[in-house]
Amino acid sequence: METYQRYRRRINYYETDQMGIVHHSNYIRFFEEARLDWMEQKEMDYHRIEELGMIIPVTFVHSNYLIPLHYNDTVEIQVALTKFDGIKMEFSYKLYREGSEELCTTGQTGHCFLYRDMRPVRMKRAFPELYRSMKESVEEG
Amino acid sequence: METYQRYRRRINYYETDQMGIVHHSNYIRFFEEARLDWMEQKEMDYHRIEELGMIIPVTFVHSNYLIPLHYNDTVEIQVALTKFDGIKMEFSYKLYREGSEELCTTGQTGHCFLYRDMRPVRMKRAFPELYRSMKESVEEG
Amino acid sequence: METYQRYRRRINYYETDQMGIVHHSNYIRFFEEARLDWMEQKEMDYHRIEELGMIIPVTFVHSNYLIPLHYNDTVEIQVALTKFDGIKMEFSYKLYREGSEELCTTGQTGHCFLYRDMRPVRMKRAFPELYRSMKESVEEG
Amino acid sequence: METYQRYRRRINYYETDQMGIVHHSNYIRFFEEARLDWMEQKEMDYHRIEELGMIIPVTFVHSNYLIPLHYNDTVEIQVALTKFDGIKMEFSYKLYREGSEELCTTGQTGHCFLYRDMRPVRMKRAFPELYRSMKESVEEG
Repeated sequence: METYQRYRRRINYYETDQMGIVHHSNYIRFFEEARLDWMEQKEMDYHRIEELGMIIPVTFVHSNYLIPLHYNDTVEIQVALTKFDGIKMEFSYKLYREGSEELCTTGQTGHCFLYRDMRPVRMKRAFPELYRSMKESVEEG
Repeated sequence: METYQRYRRRINYYETDQMGIVHHSNYIRFFEEARLDWMEQKEMDYHRIEELGMIIPVTFVHSNYLIPLHYNDTVEIQVALTKFDGIKMEFSYKLYREGSEELCTTGQTGHCFLYRDMRPVRMKRAFPELYRSMKESVEEG
Repeated sequence: METYQRYRRRINYYETDQMGIVHHSNYIRFFEEARLDWMEQKEMDYHRIEELGMIIPVTFVHSNYLIPLHYNDTVEIQVALTKFDGIKMEFSYKLYREGSEELCTTGQTGHCFLYRDMRPVRMKRAFPELYRSMKESVEEG
Repeated sequence: METYQRYRRRINYYETDQMGIVHHSNYIRFFEEARLDWMEQKEMDYHRIEELGMIIPVTFVHSNYLIPLHYNDTVEIQVALTKFDGIKMEFSYKLYREGSEELCTTGQTGHCFLYRDMRPVRMKRAFPELYRSMKESVEEG
């Protein structure tokens, strides 16, 4: 049973800074790319979320930088949904340089579910099917 | 009579790339900052534009890179409205490093006026006062 | 004989602005991605350029915005080397939304060849093989 | 005795996303701007660090998003050095919208001191004066 979904893409030249490495702020963007890719594969893609009238803001970001990535590296991102209760959710991220099993960066993000008018969504009641499928996607440990 | 309005700000570390200079894409963002600052001073600020139900998309960008800027430089930007006919407008930009009169970068941008539903705005008829004040702000050659 | 090399990738959420479309500055970054991809396929990739002690700064950028791209679109970029004389070169770009043949954006960029100490490279003399292969890659018209 | 140093600047249009708010990744860049401004005022500016042959990479970032910032807001950032032992340091950040005392975002960043060849700097021994002045800048609580 496949659990983690790896997202892969090249590092762009404009993502480097004058230290010659990827600027640390860009990893937050890589998390977003990988998370939205994960959600798309879980049938929770952006267009479905939009149709349901929801937005999913970020409530927190943590990022630990272990080994820097460089221009032209391919980054591989392992994403996991680690918490989901229908009101909030959390993801974890592990970034590797392709071809290496050394961890480059780890991260977590937190999210809530809002209607566009900023009222909180209670997903269990409002979207029970989506709730169930998300609940099943949570990875323990 | 003051014609050009200089906009000034520091170059940020995250705006550099691994060549050790400001990445060329960021100058397009500097143009935007300087243009919106200019418009604010001409009573054509963003909130007024919004209240009138308009958006002002960019139709073209030209940029010529002469001397690179570096982290911690202060950039000074001279903005001029060079064309305005109530349907389209164009701006020109000259970027200097503070304390130097050597040109670092020059640029032009083109814009049109749209209502939010994408219909073109005919400003002379729709907003005659704004039209007149913009018209007066055009700098010849 | 294949002439144009199409580069494809998804538009990211963080590349949009509050107009709900891709911010115009990001297309300059798309040009760079596509150009470096093109160069890699022409055996003129970044690592080879670096080994030869060269940098290739951008001297100008033009961009014409026709139809906006949105989050989750896939952009397809057609790149062509339009001028090359061993001292300078120019590229042109055509951006399409995948699955459509309508042009979204067109662009041109100019570049020069420098050694890391900023002396100009005369490629015909210094790197005759690379010169010949670049020369052959130029597309007329 | 002034302890916190507030850094202020306007939010740029290109820092928004299609939710109409500042994209969460940009706050990490605001932290950097505010931190480098703080360091400059503490005589630990970038050029001095460079002259000493050091780089100061980011080892972690935490960010909590409470209230979103919008285009044209002025953000005020309160920075504090919260830990410093000559080998590592940590900063905390509080972001306010100008004219309001409501917290918009809080953050922490961690850093280490390296020579350019990646050897760790032992600042107490290598740069005792700088060590002392940093030590004195630490804010308890």
